[in-house]
Amino acid sequence: MSRDPDRLLPEDPATRGIARELYERVRNAPIVSPHGHVDPALLVADEPFADAAELLVRPDHYVTRMLVAAGCDVPALAAGPPEQLWRAFVEHRRLFAGTATGYWLDDQLAGLFDVDLERDGADTAYAMIAARLAEPALRPRALLQGFRVAALATTDDPLDDLDVHRRARTALPGVRLLPTFRPDRFIDPEHPGFPEAHRALVAHAGIPGDDLGGYLDALAARRAHFIAEGAISADHGMVEPYSADLDAGDAQRLFARVVSGAADAVERRELHGYLLLQMGLMSARDGLVMTLHVGVLRNHSAEMLHRAGPDSGHDIPVPTTFTRGLRPLLARVGLDPEFHLVLFTVDESAWARELAPLAGFYPSVYVGAPWWFLDAPDAIQRYRSAVTETAGFYRSSGFVDDARALASLGTRHDMARRLDAGFLARLVRQGRLTGAAAERIADDLVDSIPRGVFKL
Amino acid sequence: MSRDPDRLLPEDPATRGIARELYERVRNAPIVSPHGHVDPALLVADEPFADAAELLVRPDHYVTRMLVAAGCDVPALAAGPPEQLWRAFVEHRRLFAGTATGYWLDDQLAGLFDVDLERDGADTAYAMIAARLAEPALRPRALLQGFRVAALATTDDPLDDLDVHRRARTALPGVRLLPTFRPDRFIDPEHPGFPEAHRALVAHAGIPGDDLGGYLDALAARRAHFIAEGAISADHGMVEPYSADLDAGDAQRLFARVVSGAADAVERRELHGYLLLQMGLMSARDGLVMTLHVGVLRNHSAEMLHRAGPDSGHDIPVPTTFTRGLRPLLARVGLDPEFHLVLFTVDESAWARELAPLAGFYPSVYVGAPWWFLDAPDAIQRYRSAVTETAGFYRSSGFVDDARALASLGTRHDMARRLDAGFLARLVRQGRLTGAAAERIADDLVDSIPRGVFKL
Amino acid sequence: MSRDPDRLLPEDPATRGIARELYERVRNAPIVSPHGHVDPALLVADEPFADAAELLVRPDHYVTRMLVAAGCDVPALAAGPPEQLWRAFVEHRRLFAGTATGYWLDDQLAGLFDVDLERDGADTAYAMIAARLAEPALRPRALLQGFRVAALATTDDPLDDLDVHRRARTALPGVRLLPTFRPDRFIDPEHPGFPEAHRALVAHAGIPGDDLGGYLDALAARRAHFIAEGAISADHGMVEPYSADLDAGDAQRLFARVVSGAADAVERRELHGYLLLQMGLMSARDGLVMTLHVGVLRNHSAEMLHRAGPDSGHDIPVPTTFTRGLRPLLARVGLDPEFHLVLFTVDESAWARELAPLAGFYPSVYVGAPWWFLDAPDAIQRYRSAVTETAGFYRSSGFVDDARALASLGTRHDMARRLDAGFLARLVRQGRLTGAAAERIADDLVDSIPRGVFKL
Repeated sequence: MSRDPDRLLPEDPATRGIARELYERVRNAPIVSPHGHVDPALLVADEPFADAAELLVRPDHYVTRMLVAAGCDVPALAAGPPEQLWRAFVEHRRLFAGTATGYWLDDQLAGLFDVDLERDGADTAYAMIAARLAEPALRPRALLQGFRVAALATTDDPLDDLDVHRRARTALPGVRLLPTFRPDRFIDPEHPGFPEAHRALVAHAGIPGDDLGGYLDALAARRAHFIAEGAISADHGMVEPYSADLDAGDAQRLFARVVSGAADAVERRELHGYLLLQMGLMSARDGLVMTLHVGVLRNHSAEMLHRAGPDSGHDIPVPTTFTRGLRPLLARVGLDPEFHLVLFTVDESAWARELAPLAGFYPSVYVGAPWWFLDAPDAIQRYRSAVTETAGFYRSSGFVDDARALASLGTRHDMARRLDAGFLARLVRQGRLTGAAAERIADDLVDSIPRGVFKL
Repeated sequence: MSRDPDRLLPEDPATRGIARELYERVRNAPIVSPHGHVDPALLVADEPFADAAELLVRPDHYVTRMLVAAGCDVPALAAGPPEQLWRAFVEHRRLFAGTATGYWLDDQLAGLFDVDLERDGADTAYAMIAARLAEPALRPRALLQGFRVAALATTDDPLDDLDVHRRARTALPGVRLLPTFRPDRFIDPEHPGFPEAHRALVAHAGIPGDDLGGYLDALAARRAHFIAEGAISADHGMVEPYSADLDAGDAQRLFARVVSGAADAVERRELHGYLLLQMGLMSARDGLVMTLHVGVLRNHSAEMLHRAGPDSGHDIPVPTTFTRGLRPLLARVGLDPEFHLVLFTVDESAWARELAPLAGFYPSVYVGAPWWFLDAPDAIQRYRSAVTETAGFYRSSGFVDDARALASLGTRHDMARRLDAGFLARLVRQGRLTGAAAERIADDLVDSIPRGVFKL
Repeated sequence: MSRDPDRLLPEDPATRGIARELYERVRNAPIVSPHGHVDPALLVADEPFADAAELLVRPDHYVTRMLVAAGCDVPALAAGPPEQLWRAFVEHRRLFAGTATGYWLDDQLAGLFDVDLERDGADTAYAMIAARLAEPALRPRALLQGFRVAALATTDDPLDDLDVHRRARTALPGVRLLPTFRPDRFIDPEHPGFPEAHRALVAHAGIPGDDLGGYLDALAARRAHFIAEGAISADHGMVEPYSADLDAGDAQRLFARVVSGAADAVERRELHGYLLLQMGLMSARDGLVMTLHVGVLRNHSAEMLHRAGPDSGHDIPVPTTFTRGLRPLLARVGLDPEFHLVLFTVDESAWARELAPLAGFYPSVYVGAPWWFLDAPDAIQRYRSAVTETAGFYRSSGFVDDARALASLGTRHDMARRLDAGFLARLVRQGRLTGAAAERIADDLVDSIPRGVFKL
């Protein structure tokens, strides 16, 4: 579809007029992306993207999950020629009508390639995209520069030597590249990779396997390495937000039981909560912003996990509550303004009920932007509505794209800017904010707020 | 009140204009009603409705519950002369202002009877309705034909011989009549009717009471009988969505313990989960669409249950989560596109959090239309907003009225069409959908979508 | 900011026009405030408020919590000179942009003091407020009269002799002053004040400490004292809504175990549920309206509790469900129309899911107004949207301010009136309500509804 210049703005003409002006202030502002999953090797190699399927379909589980729902054999399609996967996607495009993914795809196709799938059809579109992908302006680094990306975070394993990041940094002088410390497999005994991660870290550190103090020191040393390489944050995923404060002796005994394989599920959960709390204490000491992504049951379908691996589109949310589970952590460092804790949820009932009240009191707590399934136009409006009346704008994280697809960065941040402009315009139209205040907030939401929350 | 031709359409004039055109496309489209509770005997007899109270008040627990709340002795009123019950309803009509029930009643009164309760008062309205009820156009079959009903489902007991359906089918040649297999009392050991249902089925099949294999075969045979009589779906109600996959020997032992009365609550829940999973496996084999209505605690008031029986207005929802409970069932047949599973909730927090992500991955899963208390104008908008951005329109069920009151069918489907037109119009106005795409979706929502989901 | 006369009204011009007329009907109607926390001693003394900080910042945990979040040492600031606390607030005012608190403060500053913080700055504003506070019109009693307060509830300890209320009543002849019986510390064994409260009540009544019958009689006698002094309601706070119906002998034994200190957490919860049910039975007998405020974990930060005491801004909500927990109480007196039970939640998912269905059936149950964090413009719209379609307007409580800050009463009720006018206007614009019906409901929401629910 051709792009409406007022897309995503409010329906009411007067409100839309205000929103348009707010959006124009920030539409070309640099992009600060403090959390995401772009592969830094892509930026070092800077090869052209192979084809439309490789750019927009194959690596994007938002897209492939819907093809599974349409009855396609996605693992087989993904292993075949790219035209075939692309045709399957175009054939089922009506499934994406009204979805956030559909909006991003249409916007990228039109904005980057002048493609309209309705008008062009699968094969013409494929050829048009192929022609453009060969141009220098559509190589990874040029795309980032075209989007005006000022800072870009990756997500990395604690044992990563970050050599690729160093090379990417040299290759992209204008962009602040931020590795992110993601220790899930080292601190979650239920993680399928825990035994191997534990083994690798104790070998790396040259410590006995059941020495908790040594294990924590080894994690702290890896954090120091990340900080030296430019990291600003440590990211954690867990199903249930849970922290536990244990006496050092009890913790040492629990750790030994878990690594020996003798512990039960309750003990493993307790150790996870204890190690998460230790990560929080380290964040308060070393300054890495702690981000927490919770409430998703990973790999719901064992069969698809077996056939297509993790991140293949069947991670499903569960009801989530933070109030009790984070209390031990916040009791230790919640009132420390140097500690920053950004909380992301896919259970939106927690926004008004828990996250806004927590962020409206603890100087350390910020409400993370709408994440994953909730990173979508209506959901973003619900987020601002749920969070703002209790916590305002300055206790939220600013937009976080969490993107894997580099080419989507422009669209994703543009969408957030349009929607925040619309939300602010409504408050102005309802006499709840002056125009001047709305302008300041619109500016801050794309600059000083994410920079402040993520210490940039 | 006199009927506004633009009722339920969006407030913004430009959006309303788009909505009006979308609505006009589908306002007279045939009604597909794949799940509901109309009594087929009504269609065989085709007697005129007795009076206004019998048509609009007495059998409708949406209405009587509010009279209970108003302090009326409803069981006594329902046992008395109809004029008295009608007057009680009219006297308390302000309680329905702004409710979905109030909208349906006003719309039926105006559309079918030219009655306006404010203008006419209780007794005149009663007489006006009585005069019209005698007309042929207001008999049950003529009403259905006037509403352009193309397909109509009933809800039936597995041991029903379906003779009445056969007679109704003959009497209504233009309408596809669909019996629905509803086995709750045969598979839920906590159901008060379980002992009797179990006894009746084993007697019917001529098997020992503790023979699980025979019991399952007997249920499969009854499903085959329903299919032969035109059934397309099997419907299941349960408080907590729960499925359990057991080894055959364990299941046989569990079944024997439960039917002997020796089992505890945990074992009864486990058997219910196991039998639900077996119903799913049968659906994958015999093709009956599986619908699941969950999260309602039935008969909250023991006193009112005693005085007025079940379905007397005090079934109250509880918090509901599907992600973990349905995993065993989906592990078995979730990826099978021949298996169709339609999930209905009265806890709307599950829509964006769980149902849209599940339906956006599993080819078998569809998000059921807003059910019961949520089948109301604003709630329907919240539903589309919560579901669409993750699962689009084509993974939703299309409108399902779940109606008991035959005379309300026209109003109920008209309401859904107006609201979907309004939702689509907003997406067009915000540049998220082209006008052509919105037209196609509006058409599909009343035709190809429900027909596809329910295999019609 | 200067006050927009249309503030908080809907964006669409036609809808706004309808809303403006509805609002004009009720803007100057007397205020009925059936539940709140104004200190009656303030009304007896009738001293001028000391200064801006004392009026608007120090006693308001909605405000101070955000200063904590901004990194201020609020306990230290609160102990220092008022100018310093005021400057800290003004310096951080951008944190309140878009919040309900920010709206109330701006509205009070403009309406009572002609102050605009942006224009005037901290020190000028402080001086302007100081000048006005000396005027008779801004003393506590004059403020109440200026706001047209017709009835005002306080919240009081069961052992309070209510002498201050008697004096306040004499001093304020035009206002109906309503003490409220709040027995939490007497009936919740987990309350830190339970041992002392129990000791004080048995001493007051001259009964043995383990005599449950005597304890209940003593509570009933205190309720009678409150009723004699004008009380209309008894208010209860608990984390989890829970009631329990026990055999008298079991209850006596449980009570004895709890007061002896031998009981565990499960037994203490059970006793709390039993005593709550007894409070409900007493309400059905003595006529005090039972209000229930649930779902908040008090004093989340032990450190801030230690430094600043309770009500210092870190009470955080938890997920809340009522359906099962209130069933024993409703089984006893739920169908008694003389029993009134008003249910308040800070988990908004319960509104449509549980509270509206309960209030739409039980004559005793009313859905309480949006409470605490949810008493905010968008949340109030979500409340009406969630509740009305199932329970209408007449099963809701009408606006309840729950205010501690006397000077905010005018703004708070004005906000509710504007938002209800906007909600009603939308229903009119969508053809769901006639103009005449909307006018009647607007009138009733500020008068007959709260008077009926609270038996005024």
